Amino acid sequence: MTRGVTVAVDANGADLGPAEVAAGAATAAAQGVRVLLFGPADQLGVPAPGVEIVDAPASVAKAADPARAVRASPDSSIVRAVRAVGDGRADAFVSGGSTGAALAAGLFNVKRGRGVHRPALAAAVPVPGHPVTLLDVGANAEVRPEHLVQFAFMGAALSSVVLGVASPRVGLLSNGEEATKGTALVREVHAQLAAVRGLNWIGNVEGTDLTSGKADVIVADGFTGNVALKALEAASQATLGAVRAAATSGARARLGGLMLKPALRSVRDEVDPENAGGAYLLGLRHLGVVPHGRFTRYGFSQAILLAARGVSGDVVGRTHAALEAAGALRPSTQASDASPSVA
Amino acid sequence: MTRGVTVAVDANGADLGPAEVAAGAATAAAQGVRVLLFGPADQLGVPAPGVEIVDAPASVAKAADPARAVRASPDSSIVRAVRAVGDGRADAFVSGGSTGAALAAGLFNVKRGRGVHRPALAAAVPVPGHPVTLLDVGANAEVRPEHLVQFAFMGAALSSVVLGVASPRVGLLSNGEEATKGTALVREVHAQLAAVRGLNWIGNVEGTDLTSGKADVIVADGFTGNVALKALEAASQATLGAVRAAATSGARARLGGLMLKPALRSVRDEVDPENAGGAYLLGLRHLGVVPHGRFTRYGFSQAILLAARGVSGDVVGRTHAALEAAGALRPSTQASDASPSVA
Repeated sequence: MTRGVTVAVDANGADLGPAEVAAGAATAAAQGVRVLLFGPADQLGVPAPGVEIVDAPASVAKAADPARAVRASPDSSIVRAVRAVGDGRADAFVSGGSTGAALAAGLFNVKRGRGVHRPALAAAVPVPGHPVTLLDVGANAEVRPEHLVQFAFMGAALSSVVLGVASPRVGLLSNGEEATKGTALVREVHAQLAAVRGLNWIGNVEGTDLTSGKADVIVADGFTGNVALKALEAASQATLGAVRAAATSGARARLGGLMLKPALRSVRDEVDPENAGGAYLLGLRHLGVVPHGRFTRYGFSQAILLAARGVSGDVVGRTHAALEAAGALRPSTQASDASPSVA
Repeated sequence: MTRGVTVAVDANGADLGPAEVAAGAATAAAQGVRVLLFGPADQLGVPAPGVEIVDAPASVAKAADPARAVRASPDSSIVRAVRAVGDGRADAFVSGGSTGAALAAGLFNVKRGRGVHRPALAAAVPVPGHPVTLLDVGANAEVRPEHLVQFAFMGAALSSVVLGVASPRVGLLSNGEEATKGTALVREVHAQLAAVRGLNWIGNVEGTDLTSGKADVIVADGFTGNVALKALEAASQATLGAVRAAATSGARARLGGLMLKPALRSVRDEVDPENAGGAYLLGLRHLGVVPHGRFTRYGFSQAILLAARGVSGDVVGRTHAALEAAGALRPSTQASDASPSVA
């Protein structure tokens, strides 16, 4: 289902270096995705079948102002990868570098969807059991109420069209269930979401509900969502690591661990952030995927496949149609929220 | 070491009801703590040795304005428990009910420490491995920069005097390591903390660092800290639950699980929030402890023992002395930040 899709990939920005991304690209290409790989050609090796290397050695530095950095680096790998999507040479982009740079490059070169206030990063939370979509996990550290209200509709649309959840239950992340809990922003968004139509709104949810199965979609500003997602991923990995350590703590435990190993593999997979491939950057006219910079080649291959599946499934078009049907798009008469104040 | 200490306990507010708190009080009293137990006497049974029951059936409702609710309920169990500390009849208080009510009752009846801007809830993060102190985990959903700066010193003092960490490394929770990451509040606090003396400041840390061992103390506003702690606790429990489920997924796995069980017990204990007993409410003239409302009798007994150990170890006096030595107290000439705008 990913055949015929072209994904533009930024090879810079991975903690393990461009060659790791190239290895991931090779794996994804072997499954039928066409990859345009932008990065330092001298570090990317011989291109694998289905991978076209575009020499773009420069990378955007992590900077105070990603929008300015992106403007100042038109030849950087991230800008060139995103521009390939804007120009129609690729269908989606993948970058594990600075989220702010990816967002700024996307806003400049792919443009936001009509009626969209702000793009948001939507992640499938890697916990065992019920799948939860969390957004925003880092595109916007600071938001206005109308942004979070639209994120609620974007998350519901994504959950519905991608995960097939019939009427996704949408909650707002806060420090308590009561409508009066949270910051002034959260209280205002709570009031607005309680008044909208066309959303299966369940009220405030807490950090606990990222695993409780109470909500299908959890809405947060990009600061809180980023902290929560990383805390959750770290806790799962630390717990699994402690289980592994316990399973080597003596002869008896070692034997038990060996016998349990096959059954534990599914747990390991469920909590491994690399499996999901990263977060969708939603709200642009084409799809972006942002994997963690620390991912290995496996995670980058999953990110490219996630992007390709998203293109095949028309995540952008169907999400936008769902937003339109719900009346959640900004009226076209309203002044454009043009300045990309990216996180 | 907890003998001779009296802890005032609010029996209302626990999800499992007042009798569960009474059972926890009995366990703590059996270890030498004297407990004044405030709640509905008809639900608390016959007092255990070392437990004195004070009939206080009324509880403060979870309300939009906890300060007003506390003022309106002078006979509620939480207010009477806290007042017992203010009056010198008890050394510390424990309440698993509304955090906002506990904070408001504390501010009215125990008063904040001289030079303290705002009390904060400081929790030992329940992850395997390196212990981390996270504050604020819910006392103040909205804060000013000077509050977070003082929280940094309070956390360092606690880590040093309670956990014996020689020069605790202090980080600020953000969505990225760079000084430019985060909300306007976080960027301002980052700049201020980078300029202070007497703190082992390591800069911004991410959600991942709640388990990485990079920091001994992590500072956050009460909204973000609450979400992060709950997300982390939920993820650990969900992962451990999935491991348990895997260990019953077949005959071979079941046998492996049985052999591994003794070794896994320490992991279970490390990630069990009930073991820590809850969070210290720091910054008042006497100590408070806030356990999760969902705790069982075991968690409540741990909360009472935590309070008693904190009194024996003079956490309040030593923390305050450390704040004073670091010059982190508010000058006495400054206008009092008196209005308790509690979360």
